[in-house]
Amino acid sequence: MPRILIKVAYDGTEYHGFQIQDNGRTIQGELQRALFELTGESITLIGGSRTDAGVHSKGNVAVFDTVSRISPLKFAKALNTKLPHDIVVWYSDEAAPNFHPRKVKSIKTYEYSILNADYEDPLLMRFFHHIPRILDIEGMKKAAVYFEGEHDFTSFCTASDTNTDKVRTIYSSKIITDKNDERILRYHVEGNGFLYNMVRIMTGTLIQVGLGQFSPSDIPGMIEKRHRGAAGSTAPAKGLCHMGTIWEV
Amino acid sequence: MPRILIKVAYDGTEYHGFQIQDNGRTIQGELQRALFELTGESITLIGGSRTDAGVHSKGNVAVFDTVSRISPLKFAKALNTKLPHDIVVWYSDEAAPNFHPRKVKSIKTYEYSILNADYEDPLLMRFFHHIPRILDIEGMKKAAVYFEGEHDFTSFCTASDTNTDKVRTIYSSKIITDKNDERILRYHVEGNGFLYNMVRIMTGTLIQVGLGQFSPSDIPGMIEKRHRGAAGSTAPAKGLCHMGTIWEV
Repeated sequence: MPRILIKVAYDGTEYHGFQIQDNGRTIQGELQRALFELTGESITLIGGSRTDAGVHSKGNVAVFDTVSRISPLKFAKALNTKLPHDIVVWYSDEAAPNFHPRKVKSIKTYEYSILNADYEDPLLMRFFHHIPRILDIEGMKKAAVYFEGEHDFTSFCTASDTNTDKVRTIYSSKIITDKNDERILRYHVEGNGFLYNMVRIMTGTLIQVGLGQFSPSDIPGMIEKRHRGAAGSTAPAKGLCHMGTIWEV
Repeated sequence: MPRILIKVAYDGTEYHGFQIQDNGRTIQGELQRALFELTGESITLIGGSRTDAGVHSKGNVAVFDTVSRISPLKFAKALNTKLPHDIVVWYSDEAAPNFHPRKVKSIKTYEYSILNADYEDPLLMRFFHHIPRILDIEGMKKAAVYFEGEHDFTSFCTASDTNTDKVRTIYSSKIITDKNDERILRYHVEGNGFLYNMVRIMTGTLIQVGLGQFSPSDIPGMIEKRHRGAAGSTAPAKGLCHMGTIWEV
């Protein structure tokens, strides 16, 4: 049975995350409903990144098996006719029959967007976390770099995370200012994987550095403690966007 | 009675335009309701730009008279506590008692945002008009420049526009590509005033140039005809944003 790979972008505001659940609309649930309407098959998707409730994505990956005669390249446009407007499949093609997006080595990129200004901006508010206080951006830049490298991120995931191996490699961790809009700050992070709530806790901790509640050099000690209580708070979901995943086939 | 000037940003998606009307929520209606809740006064605002249903603004101007003892500088934050999240007042101060934002010489800036890509983008869709066809961007750039200067814009306003003088001066009219995202195209226009639907008809005409339905050099002839039927179609409201207004006091 052919395996199809899709790439999907979504505004996560109205969804209870990617992964299907009994209560509440999910991205996976909407995709599986659309697949059923299209093919008549009850298909279970395998998702690449199980983004939280309220988190967005520009290119989450999912695969599924189907006997449908819809051409692999045409699944994207066909699915969009059955999906709500805030979910868009923008790529589809045939994948190797055993390809599993969470079992291949990959690099995932996330961005967390902050509006640092006195006032909220209604044109940005769906995708930005608004912080109306002065931030020490240089301190945040220094702090972010400490996350780079291979570390045990136990301190930076929800205590209920069930992954036994909490070691992850961060290839890039940077605070970036916007050249065109001085109110905008982005935390850009790339790694070989992320634990539950990991980017939001890293961001929340960096924001606390910006507010002077932690010093940049506190970060290595927080990582070393391997205890959730050692790190800072969890930043709100709406500022977070999964930017994309690349992998070696 | 002191006159207060405010600057207001809004996501126009859920509103029937700026100007108050009997049916449907409007920006002016929400502002007047918030002012009544704050001051107990039934205040009629004078708006700077009467944006259409679905059009956005980053800095529309309005003035109102009040006997309230709220300090002029504090009106912005006070109003925001009474406004829905998609309307934000980000500036307030005292204005001259006779200052009328539509009776002073001003320069208004509008931008129309286009997503030119095969697929819709759920993270941009509230503020971009999606065009999945190939556009001749060089042709659009050439066409846009013909709008610059002083012209009678009768061809580029809704036939029901009640302005007797349809001469306006356009200081700048440019198609701009985005350095970071090749899918994005913006039409940037500055002028001393705009007639009803004028920017949307100018944009709709430029899009038709991009689609090869008009040639850039057709624009002067369209202007000369002084008849709505001579110009192109009206682009959808959601891509349009009033960027701001500056004036000589």
